[in-house]
Amino acid sequence: MIGGTLRVGLLGCGNVGAAVVRLLAEHADDIARRAGCRVEVARVAVRDPRRARDVPLPSSAFTDDPTAVVEDPDVDIVCELIGGLEPAGSLILAAFDRGKPVVTANKELLATRGRELFDASDAKGLDLYFEAAVGGGIPLIRPLKESLTGERLRRVMGIVNGTTNFILTRMADEGRPFEEVLAEAQALGYAEADPSADVDGHDAAAKCAILASIAFNARVTASDVYREGIAGVTPEDIAFARRLGYAVKLLAVAELVDGDRIAARVHPAMIPATHPLAAVRDAFNAVFVEGPHVGELMFYGRGAGGDATATAVVGDLVSVARNLQAGTRGVGCTCFHERGVRPMSELDGQYYILMRVEDRPGVLAEIASVFGRCRVSIKSVWQEGIGEDARLVFITHRAREGAFQEAVAGIRGLAPVREVRSILRVEAEE
Amino acid sequence: MIGGTLRVGLLGCGNVGAAVVRLLAEHADDIARRAGCRVEVARVAVRDPRRARDVPLPSSAFTDDPTAVVEDPDVDIVCELIGGLEPAGSLILAAFDRGKPVVTANKELLATRGRELFDASDAKGLDLYFEAAVGGGIPLIRPLKESLTGERLRRVMGIVNGTTNFILTRMADEGRPFEEVLAEAQALGYAEADPSADVDGHDAAAKCAILASIAFNARVTASDVYREGIAGVTPEDIAFARRLGYAVKLLAVAELVDGDRIAARVHPAMIPATHPLAAVRDAFNAVFVEGPHVGELMFYGRGAGGDATATAVVGDLVSVARNLQAGTRGVGCTCFHERGVRPMSELDGQYYILMRVEDRPGVLAEIASVFGRCRVSIKSVWQEGIGEDARLVFITHRAREGAFQEAVAGIRGLAPVREVRSILRVEAEE
Repeated sequence: MIGGTLRVGLLGCGNVGAAVVRLLAEHADDIARRAGCRVEVARVAVRDPRRARDVPLPSSAFTDDPTAVVEDPDVDIVCELIGGLEPAGSLILAAFDRGKPVVTANKELLATRGRELFDASDAKGLDLYFEAAVGGGIPLIRPLKESLTGERLRRVMGIVNGTTNFILTRMADEGRPFEEVLAEAQALGYAEADPSADVDGHDAAAKCAILASIAFNARVTASDVYREGIAGVTPEDIAFARRLGYAVKLLAVAELVDGDRIAARVHPAMIPATHPLAAVRDAFNAVFVEGPHVGELMFYGRGAGGDATATAVVGDLVSVARNLQAGTRGVGCTCFHERGVRPMSELDGQYYILMRVEDRPGVLAEIASVFGRCRVSIKSVWQEGIGEDARLVFITHRAREGAFQEAVAGIRGLAPVREVRSILRVEAEE
Repeated sequence: MIGGTLRVGLLGCGNVGAAVVRLLAEHADDIARRAGCRVEVARVAVRDPRRARDVPLPSSAFTDDPTAVVEDPDVDIVCELIGGLEPAGSLILAAFDRGKPVVTANKELLATRGRELFDASDAKGLDLYFEAAVGGGIPLIRPLKESLTGERLRRVMGIVNGTTNFILTRMADEGRPFEEVLAEAQALGYAEADPSADVDGHDAAAKCAILASIAFNARVTASDVYREGIAGVTPEDIAFARRLGYAVKLLAVAELVDGDRIAARVHPAMIPATHPLAAVRDAFNAVFVEGPHVGELMFYGRGAGGDATATAVVGDLVSVARNLQAGTRGVGCTCFHERGVRPMSELDGQYYILMRVEDRPGVLAEIASVFGRCRVSIKSVWQEGIGEDARLVFITHRAREGAFQEAVAGIRGLAPVREVRSILRVEAEE
């Protein structure tokens, strides 16, 4: 600290980074009162230091060498907003080596190499804060890690990817197919040119791993999370869902099961239209948390956007600044427990299946007998259309995933079944 | 601290207190890992120490002398769950005098004598935590105080009283009058024998004052909050509201206006059925927060109940325990600013007014001309029924509260107006 000011070294200055610089400057006095000292961005590493940027910093603050920022003796706190695995991971470890706490928004890195980073932060007794990694500006990490210390959470279920929620909302409102809405979202800048991180569920899976790690106090990585994207969801599925009283959402679900195992999955699912998550529209995010004592909690807000995410980063920077001055640190890694991961085949869930069948006597009985043989019990069935275009929809009672998949394989093999069009999980209390 | 254990002195052992004792015992190992030491309830002050209680404590831990608990040299942290102004206030000040941090759930005390208590806590450099004072188990104080440091919030709007939300939900679902549903709620134990703290909005006003103080960094007391209860809301109002696309809720609204004044009010209001708060049913609570950077956030959950509220108390105890060991304290009073309170007469709002009128030519023109004279512009008007029982409903555009009240006085004086039956504020973006 120089002259009552703690100095932040910023790695990356995109939408979030630039908003962090602006917020720290704009609210400098209020922040100083809370932090106990001034907090300023001293140096910024960017790919192109000569590019003009809308931030209140002299051009001399910019460099293209992130290592120089981390190693700068005037930098007290490192704020990593580059994203991706490398060089972000090495830069964070280098910051710890130099005794500097870190604030990051890097979900991919935390969900992949979280253990290594938290071990390093614990070994050095340095803060590693990451509120912005999940849910943008929605306070999630701090409430889960600190406010709910007295609870043993049972389930975390969220809409944690704004792009896919925007696409599903448009598909539902306008009855348009996935590809068309995706193209529009790309044109509007809501979706990336390469949309796979969002639409295939990679982004949601990383966030699911982070939420599960904190909620259940055990290290869960992105590779532990079962993952399906939304490219297979059709306007027909959404219309059927609505008719049956459901909405279709890309859900991240993490549960504590069998006492000490974790089940984590990301996939499109039908949820009851009355569930609070069903009302989460457009690019909004929400995380629904359940525990035996606290009951049901939901945290809702804008899950992305530079300004919203920057408020989370600034909140972390102020906490880290307070801790530095007190010579202490905040709550470190809380992944105390070793917990196994339950394989998806052992999931008990409800399913929606839509198929195109030949419209002749005995078809329903043939299909029902396959379900019965696999011990999958049917909750409801609809038939629509006639002749070549007859469609059958089943919703099952809770069944073992493995048994359901076996039934689907059997059904696909039946002669009158022209096509198994869609399968969606149904998240509801039976 | 004795032998690696921090000891809590509990004042009050009702539903919340007993749940705190149980949670600390049940999750002792997890809590010790987060707190860095064991946290145990050492002594408990209750009215009747001989009463049997379902808590894992020896009978020797109980006393009827709260001062003895505060003064006990073995007590490191005081947890005040007695409620009310006195002796709670004096006991908290006594704790500070003895160098002990305090955790409290006492909304009434904080909303009345907050300044005195926070000044004492700041002067001594001791923690005063109060997550449980608003929203039961919903993390609100910590997110507002710490996560949103980088934001300048514009508005906080919440459903913060579970009893009145339960009553309004039942009235809406079943079309029954207030008195009948209240009696049922009392029989079920959801409402107190003396329901005035809830139904007259006192409880909500105290919570509104606390939320406003934190959101806008200025001291707001319960007496600064305009207050109306729900006793005047009728099933007819709720039915009209629904027909017009609104729900009726008891809202606590705090806003930063004119740059640096605060407006805070608690009253029943019509909100659009599509607003996230409209879906908050039964005894649930939710707080909706808006700021220029973070956009819209909502925190939702059970706003009361011993177990849920106890999770918030335990979260605070763990934070205070960590701070004690680090020889530091958390964020203290954040009411840095002196801000005036805008009087209710200067409010700009929309209004719903239902009146019973004589059904003859010229009545509508007479009423409309009163509105016009007072510069209150009409958004929509309905007439229903004929003859003696003709009812007129107006919804206004945004108007100054004072002007609207002047119009109402004028309308009451018109001969063909038999009765102004209901007036409700409408909270919506125009």
